[in-house]
Amino acid sequence: MKPIADIAKLVDIHEEDLELYGKYKAKLSPELWEKVKDRPDGKLVLVTAMNPNPAGAGKTLTTIGLSQSLNKLGKRAIAALREPSLGPCLGMKGGATGSGRAQILPADEINLHFTGDIHAITSAHNLLAAMIDNHIHHGNERRLNPKKIVWKRAMDMNDRALRNIVIGLGDGNGQTREDGFLITTASEIMAILCLSESLADLRDRLGKIIIGYDLDDKPVTPADIRAVDAMCVLLKDALKPNLVQTAEGTPVIVHGGPFANIAHGCSSVIGTRLGLKLADYVVTEAGFGADLGAEKFFNIKCRKAGLTPSAAVLVVTVRALKYNGGIPVAQLHEENLDALRAGFANVQRHVENLRSFGVPVVIALNSFHTDTEQEQSEVIALCQKLGADVALSRVWAEGSEGGIDLAEKVIQAAQSASSFTYLYEDQLPIREKIERIVTKLYRGAGVRFSKAALQTMRKAEEMGLSHFPVCMAKTPYSFSDQPDQLGAPSDFTIQVSEIRISQGAGFLVVLTGSLVTMPGLPKKPAAESVFLNEDGEVEGLA
Amino acid sequence: MKPIADIAKLVDIHEEDLELYGKYKAKLSPELWEKVKDRPDGKLVLVTAMNPNPAGAGKTLTTIGLSQSLNKLGKRAIAALREPSLGPCLGMKGGATGSGRAQILPADEINLHFTGDIHAITSAHNLLAAMIDNHIHHGNERRLNPKKIVWKRAMDMNDRALRNIVIGLGDGNGQTREDGFLITTASEIMAILCLSESLADLRDRLGKIIIGYDLDDKPVTPADIRAVDAMCVLLKDALKPNLVQTAEGTPVIVHGGPFANIAHGCSSVIGTRLGLKLADYVVTEAGFGADLGAEKFFNIKCRKAGLTPSAAVLVVTVRALKYNGGIPVAQLHEENLDALRAGFANVQRHVENLRSFGVPVVIALNSFHTDTEQEQSEVIALCQKLGADVALSRVWAEGSEGGIDLAEKVIQAAQSASSFTYLYEDQLPIREKIERIVTKLYRGAGVRFSKAALQTMRKAEEMGLSHFPVCMAKTPYSFSDQPDQLGAPSDFTIQVSEIRISQGAGFLVVLTGSLVTMPGLPKKPAAESVFLNEDGEVEGLA
Repeated sequence: MKPIADIAKLVDIHEEDLELYGKYKAKLSPELWEKVKDRPDGKLVLVTAMNPNPAGAGKTLTTIGLSQSLNKLGKRAIAALREPSLGPCLGMKGGATGSGRAQILPADEINLHFTGDIHAITSAHNLLAAMIDNHIHHGNERRLNPKKIVWKRAMDMNDRALRNIVIGLGDGNGQTREDGFLITTASEIMAILCLSESLADLRDRLGKIIIGYDLDDKPVTPADIRAVDAMCVLLKDALKPNLVQTAEGTPVIVHGGPFANIAHGCSSVIGTRLGLKLADYVVTEAGFGADLGAEKFFNIKCRKAGLTPSAAVLVVTVRALKYNGGIPVAQLHEENLDALRAGFANVQRHVENLRSFGVPVVIALNSFHTDTEQEQSEVIALCQKLGADVALSRVWAEGSEGGIDLAEKVIQAAQSASSFTYLYEDQLPIREKIERIVTKLYRGAGVRFSKAALQTMRKAEEMGLSHFPVCMAKTPYSFSDQPDQLGAPSDFTIQVSEIRISQGAGFLVVLTGSLVTMPGLPKKPAAESVFLNEDGEVEGLA
Repeated sequence: MKPIADIAKLVDIHEEDLELYGKYKAKLSPELWEKVKDRPDGKLVLVTAMNPNPAGAGKTLTTIGLSQSLNKLGKRAIAALREPSLGPCLGMKGGATGSGRAQILPADEINLHFTGDIHAITSAHNLLAAMIDNHIHHGNERRLNPKKIVWKRAMDMNDRALRNIVIGLGDGNGQTREDGFLITTASEIMAILCLSESLADLRDRLGKIIIGYDLDDKPVTPADIRAVDAMCVLLKDALKPNLVQTAEGTPVIVHGGPFANIAHGCSSVIGTRLGLKLADYVVTEAGFGADLGAEKFFNIKCRKAGLTPSAAVLVVTVRALKYNGGIPVAQLHEENLDALRAGFANVQRHVENLRSFGVPVVIALNSFHTDTEQEQSEVIALCQKLGADVALSRVWAEGSEGGIDLAEKVIQAAQSASSFTYLYEDQLPIREKIERIVTKLYRGAGVRFSKAALQTMRKAEEMGLSHFPVCMAKTPYSFSDQPDQLGAPSDFTIQVSEIRISQGAGFLVVLTGSLVTMPGLPKKPAAESVFLNEDGEVEGLA
């Protein structure tokens, strides 16, 4: 690792604009934005993927590797990534900082408390929750309906026992009512932080969160109970993007980490916009496969922030292809060209979808050691038949050297003049936005709405929020809402069970099926395998 | 503010041993301890106070001011303070970084997230809680009795609605059971962190926490459910002391902040011991008045860490004297020499108590703008009649200049050879330890134990823990367990309602009356008054 001040110099950031957190992490000051904001933007490259297989696709890995390869080719490149959440790190998933020779550093610190952003969001979230119950306890001036509080509490931990709870038991302990905890990454504050353009914008959005309804069924906000300023105070440093480096010394902005179902699953707008002023290329990723991640990146993040993507990289793996071709996880290491061809229908649909946004697509075949040469050749041939650029990526084993072909193809793709377009315009009615996503991207036959969903839709219209984009919460494993319908299913109907209004984030969350916003720990959580070695260093996390 | 690296140089700390958190905060590396551990110790000065009045005594202020004055007199001095907790900062109390010309900086950052230590403790606490319920959920191999889990959850927020809750409601969400949240400063992990001498000691102590009992009523620990190493991983940086500065550039170690009732209320052993190697004088404080704070500082912290205090400063104020003389808060600004003389009985008893530990006492009369000259002269005369050194302290208004007299008297007092002694030896039976504190220091007639307390006492004896010191949890306002018995009450009986075993911290918590370990917010919480000004700076916190 090089001192972060040296990394900053690579993109002309001077020490005065760095707030150091140790030698290898820094926050970028708001003054830096003021200095660079009038520069032209670099090119924005989205890394997305086919529907994920349980073993992972290598999207973060490819994002990091591609940024290293672009640098190797003499382009000034920055990767823009999400912050890992402690809950999954210590639960099922482990670290989220890439691996092999495409990692970001210092990995352990990024995976653990990092610069405290997520802790700050937890604090702001729970301050608001405490102020709500305190408001009711001390006379309830705003006439909040205790049965209609929708603002839960938050913790950055996987803790299923906190999903559904009863609070306020016992004399003097406030209103007894049902409640629950979200994992912090599912907090609307996380989505807000990631979509805010400035401190003023953050303040404005926080004030609009719907925390519940009053006895006249009118929405109540943090502004109504004087919580907004204290929340801003708690979040002021979390809003500043964090600078770290890849294993090869490429600058990386790691900032914000919203859930990819109940939220939009992209790193912060502030970080991405700043990156575009500092570099020729900003390589970023979005959560889950392209049906969710890329769709939300384009329709929510790019729309809200006025960003124009220059290219999209679709990460495919031989394993994910075979999984989508019907092979169970335990057999994914065995060569199976038929399954691979069958699974390719999934890739084809994602490519068509990405192209429908007017964005050039490059396919990255992320190499894995169990792949056979024949399998890899077959994937490349199938991609070429589709008329798509494709590159074999070996960034895990080879770092930047393994992504040169990919980087060259991305540079070429990003040269063409943009014809980027959203899937729907703001004015389209809410129902039609959802139907358009389902029929045009998922290729379903239609949408069935629950009564509750229709009611909330009407409420949102009455509140003048029908211009909001929709944020689909769907299983990532399938284009449909059934996780076992792999490949390229069609003729299905999407069931919308519920719609939630994220007025602060500025979107409507559309729930298909039930949504778990507080994960549980597995029987043997990752927490059981991490430890400090004799030198006091973390082992067993990544 | 000077760069923290410059402040560090004042006590010969080189940049390589600093982990910077911005320009003005740093953590001190474990390697620094290795370099200095064989040096002789400086002198340790405890700042304590009479029983507090609701307006505060100025203990933190005096600690900071005295360290500045010692520096002014050419002594190398460091203040060692507790970290403020977010809950009280945003609740009733506001910031805890001193005020006037005796402040520590950067005050807002120290009061808010600081270097993330308390967030790390919250995370470690809640990881353990999640792993307990997860253990039960996945088969309960260790046969934990769900009705006898004593490890609650934690949050650094004042949130009364979380005091008593029911968790695990709903299918698939774990065992349904009663639970509750503590404020993080009440977590045994906070006490452990503050008493640990090293990472190895921390690990050992964490492994000994009693999280509950199994179906055979045997205690179960984090070690039994493989949670210890992950907790260490989360706490490794929090264990490193933090360096900041006073408004006059005196180095300050701010580290750890345990509750002064359920825990011992002192900053970290690691920070204090390091300070003693770096400076001629370490000035530190303990929570509440001397009956709780100084007693625990001597009997718990000094005993566990092998520290020998050279002097104690007892902070008294004209207001606190009048309050202890029976004057209500609203009238404390009015001159009242009779009430002041009556209240002095409180000071007299604290001085006698401190002397009984073999520690020289200097009384600091912390000047307040409503004091009359006659009142201040009367206090000084009363102190002198007691044969006690006394100095008028004006550090709030004048900084180091206002504490010169105090500093000179402290230097003189600290010259004498130590005759420091504990109030009781390890071997004294638990019951007699409690009785000795009550009769010798509180001057009560005796102790009445509840059946539950006697049971736990027996259990502790069976577990071989009778050598533990006791940690009294009593109202801070009175020597007795009744907050309205001010001054110097006697002939009272202390009611012990419960005893809790803090096996990791290494003490037995003795509860007198009910103990709230999760504060609530007042009707108008401090959170409603803080905001960011146009320059993005925090206002309204201190």
